[in-house]
Amino acid sequence: MVKTKRVVIVGIPGVGKTTVVTEVFNQLQQKNLKIENLTFGTIMFEEAQKLGISNRDEMRKLSVDEQKNLQIKAAQTIAQINTDVVLIDTHLFIKTNSGYLPGLPKDILDYLLPTNLVLVEAKPQDILNRRANDPTRTRDSATINSIELDNQIARSMLSSSGVLTGASVFITINQEGKSEEAAKSIADFII
Amino acid sequence: MVKTKRVVIVGIPGVGKTTVVTEVFNQLQQKNLKIENLTFGTIMFEEAQKLGISNRDEMRKLSVDEQKNLQIKAAQTIAQINTDVVLIDTHLFIKTNSGYLPGLPKDILDYLLPTNLVLVEAKPQDILNRRANDPTRTRDSATINSIELDNQIARSMLSSSGVLTGASVFITINQEGKSEEAAKSIADFII
Amino acid sequence: MVKTKRVVIVGIPGVGKTTVVTEVFNQLQQKNLKIENLTFGTIMFEEAQKLGISNRDEMRKLSVDEQKNLQIKAAQTIAQINTDVVLIDTHLFIKTNSGYLPGLPKDILDYLLPTNLVLVEAKPQDILNRRANDPTRTRDSATINSIELDNQIARSMLSSSGVLTGASVFITINQEGKSEEAAKSIADFII
Repeated sequence: MVKTKRVVIVGIPGVGKTTVVTEVFNQLQQKNLKIENLTFGTIMFEEAQKLGISNRDEMRKLSVDEQKNLQIKAAQTIAQINTDVVLIDTHLFIKTNSGYLPGLPKDILDYLLPTNLVLVEAKPQDILNRRANDPTRTRDSATINSIELDNQIARSMLSSSGVLTGASVFITINQEGKSEEAAKSIADFII
Repeated sequence: MVKTKRVVIVGIPGVGKTTVVTEVFNQLQQKNLKIENLTFGTIMFEEAQKLGISNRDEMRKLSVDEQKNLQIKAAQTIAQINTDVVLIDTHLFIKTNSGYLPGLPKDILDYLLPTNLVLVEAKPQDILNRRANDPTRTRDSATINSIELDNQIARSMLSSSGVLTGASVFITINQEGKSEEAAKSIADFII
Repeated sequence: MVKTKRVVIVGIPGVGKTTVVTEVFNQLQQKNLKIENLTFGTIMFEEAQKLGISNRDEMRKLSVDEQKNLQIKAAQTIAQINTDVVLIDTHLFIKTNSGYLPGLPKDILDYLLPTNLVLVEAKPQDILNRRANDPTRTRDSATINSIELDNQIARSMLSSSGVLTGASVFITINQEGKSEEAAKSIADFII
């Protein structure tokens, strides 16, 4: 590939994103591509550490403006990586008090310069099951209806991000037990 | 609260927005917050009056560019208010000839700097009933289907505005006779 | 009309867009309006020809940056046309490897300055039938479900483009055998 593909991969909690991203990484490596596999939040924390922040809780207590600066620095750092593919695991939004706080607003996208935007979805019932079986999760009040709304907002924000950046947009369904297929569809989309 | 929350509240005609906004105002006041409760169109008209415009019909007859200037001035004025919360009642779009004219396009959002975007929805049948019972409304040709499309466009425009501004997005259903609950969900979202 | 209306008309393959656009052109001409009826891709190719490109295949082989430059030049050229109405037939996205490549990203919209954005839709089954009967099309793997997703992404990208540009947004259904009605709804929306 001539140019670096910066592939943002998002999905609401419970879609099985981590498994899919790992599988995408493995499939792309088998094609002898040089790949960077990273999490936006981790890069952001590395930027925070340069400023003397020693843990993530401390980072979350920074002012909105300080957190925004860290996000921009992380986006700039990621945009400078020049492997064939950069997989960027992040959130399109974070749910707080039932509201959707955009995780990739325009001012971050302007620095991140994604070339591909991937939304991993799953059936609402599969999502509920996965969340119920995840002992690290605090109980949430999600219902089939609320997850369908989350999906709709995710699709809309993704479409909007595509229009803003010109990046290609892709939606894949991660069916229970078929993460390799979801990963293959993403790999085919990227290259 | 450290920073002013600028809360844009939108909803298509018939969702019962005015009632909900008044209730949000009351609930927030009981928490001893300093709140400004305003309508974007009124602030825009106040800007027009400074230029010698004496009534709203006259304002609507201004050129597109002149109206745009008034909108920008209104947005700038609102963005300078520094109470705890500024509730901004306005329209995401205005329907004309079945088309959707954006009421909060990017160039206005860039001056308004909202921190929270709230969409009040209602069941299409409730909307039709409220509109039929409103003697001030001219008869409209809305159907369940057309209202469902309106809702979908509203959600998409809201999501897009969230990505553009970074503001938190919230959708609440105003169920018939339960405006206090809708208002409470908004108040919880804001603070 | 005082100002030029720049009307972008989009629709996924198989909605019958070409027929509808021709009909819109005819209906507007009967109202004695001066109309330019053009295809974005053709204007882009004319810009390419000025640089010595002799056919469309050659144009498609240009680098992403060179193609972007041609798109911007085409958008600038179109924005300078000052007839009453400019009908701009183009694509909201191009589907490649199941992904959606935005055809009208923000940086092109910023030069094109549309005043009206029209999405022509059709029932998924009608779309499948039209595609099956089109001998120039390579076989595609579209299903009712995939077309419904295409429609949803189109509506979202259209809404986003409306918020970005402030242009009025309009969605019409082109029912089988009723393209004149769809065209009339568009003509009514424009003027």
